[in-house]
Amino acid sequence: MPMHTDQHAEYLAFAGRLADAASAVTLAYFRAALEVVDKGATRFDPVTIADREAERAMRDLIRRTYPTHGILGEEEQRVTGTEPFSWVLDPIDGTRAFITGLPLWGTLIALNDGQHPVLGVMDQPFTRERFSGDGNQAWMNGKPLQVQPCKSLSEAKLLCTTPDMFEAGGQWDAFQRVARAARLQRYGGDCYGYCMVAAGQVDAVVEAGLQPYDVQALIPIIEGAGGIMTSWTGGDPQQGGAVVACGDARVHAEILRLLNGQG
Amino acid sequence: MPMHTDQHAEYLAFAGRLADAASAVTLAYFRAALEVVDKGATRFDPVTIADREAERAMRDLIRRTYPTHGILGEEEQRVTGTEPFSWVLDPIDGTRAFITGLPLWGTLIALNDGQHPVLGVMDQPFTRERFSGDGNQAWMNGKPLQVQPCKSLSEAKLLCTTPDMFEAGGQWDAFQRVARAARLQRYGGDCYGYCMVAAGQVDAVVEAGLQPYDVQALIPIIEGAGGIMTSWTGGDPQQGGAVVACGDARVHAEILRLLNGQG
Repeated sequence: MPMHTDQHAEYLAFAGRLADAASAVTLAYFRAALEVVDKGATRFDPVTIADREAERAMRDLIRRTYPTHGILGEEEQRVTGTEPFSWVLDPIDGTRAFITGLPLWGTLIALNDGQHPVLGVMDQPFTRERFSGDGNQAWMNGKPLQVQPCKSLSEAKLLCTTPDMFEAGGQWDAFQRVARAARLQRYGGDCYGYCMVAAGQVDAVVEAGLQPYDVQALIPIIEGAGGIMTSWTGGDPQQGGAVVACGDARVHAEILRLLNGQG
Repeated sequence: MPMHTDQHAEYLAFAGRLADAASAVTLAYFRAALEVVDKGATRFDPVTIADREAERAMRDLIRRTYPTHGILGEEEQRVTGTEPFSWVLDPIDGTRAFITGLPLWGTLIALNDGQHPVLGVMDQPFTRERFSGDGNQAWMNGKPLQVQPCKSLSEAKLLCTTPDMFEAGGQWDAFQRVARAARLQRYGGDCYGYCMVAAGQVDAVVEAGLQPYDVQALIPIIEGAGGIMTSWTGGDPQQGGAVVACGDARVHAEILRLLNGQG
């Protein structure tokens, strides 16, 4: 379902309005005293008042502007639209970064046309950086983004949010094969790490345990900057789970071989 | 050697000038294409042109302004002064953050009076945040900082830059005892994590393998905000090695017990 140029520009501008609405909430709570409620049963998964209020603000704006569109968000029930378009929202990706004061969290906004995410925004309002992409192009505050070439994993800079996102055993061992082969590995990126791939600062992000709203906004940004993002088996990454994002297809191919034990 | 108030204000202002000189260099290289030279024998320890040039700029300013002061920096030989004062410099703490585009690195500047660090600055020029302290007070861009109370480790937010800073076996096992007892643990803080303790956003940082220039600027900031910073055995942390920084002395005491196997 290719979009007309006008419609495309309209939706991208609207995604920016959603990011503005979210940031009015998130910035008011960032580094303020917060009550954190543990919603996870086994794993610590903090969710803040800011998370809920920012999603509410974005949902209200979508309902008023595009009442026929669907909404999938982290905090509230899915809304099924009467059109194939749906907005996929994560008000604060990187909650642990948020509640420890680190400006690496972001608001993730994707528009899915019923088949795949066609535009994405990652907004970091504290540093005033807004990353966006449509699968063909990507921008940071309006400036075009371009991935960097990297010919092998041994020269690659690898990011991953946290070791505890991998299942013990298979997933962790597979990640370790990749990490050991990389030139440099660093923990603690969240959505910001993927945007650094798009910006040519990082060569690869390898993660697991993700939700659709954790990844859909990032796919059009990575692909728009010339990168590649798939599941660990090379499939469509839009449902989340275990994903790989790379700037260079050669590094991506090498990582997939290592993840799948063909190193 | 207590300083007079005038002298104190003069040195704090001068530390700000050093931070300005460093940031003129570091910001020019941050997110630019960089050649990274591996100076470590076994461990990847990237050092950038920005690191060297920023230290050179600060050393030049010190030599011109206080020719009798000593200088200890990461990149060049130690200069022994004819006065007990020496400046302790780390132009880019968090080199891995720097070369992956993440704004969590900082320029660390301490003044040591011959016995201990009496003032410290952590400057993050991309986010325009300058943290400073003198052991009695601490500030972020001139606004006073204050640690948060936290009555036990089970309620504490814990940061640590990377798991590979710990020696396998004893150090890693000790850190794991602390991490398992904390409410939340996150990797990837560098000097920024310590400043988040001073700002009341984080309750503890537990790290190892540090150099004197990694810690000296942070001690007057942590202590100035009402926190506590020691070695893992409760001693003076100014030589680096394995250190603990906490906002609340109760959490600090609990961490020391766990690190030393008395949990």
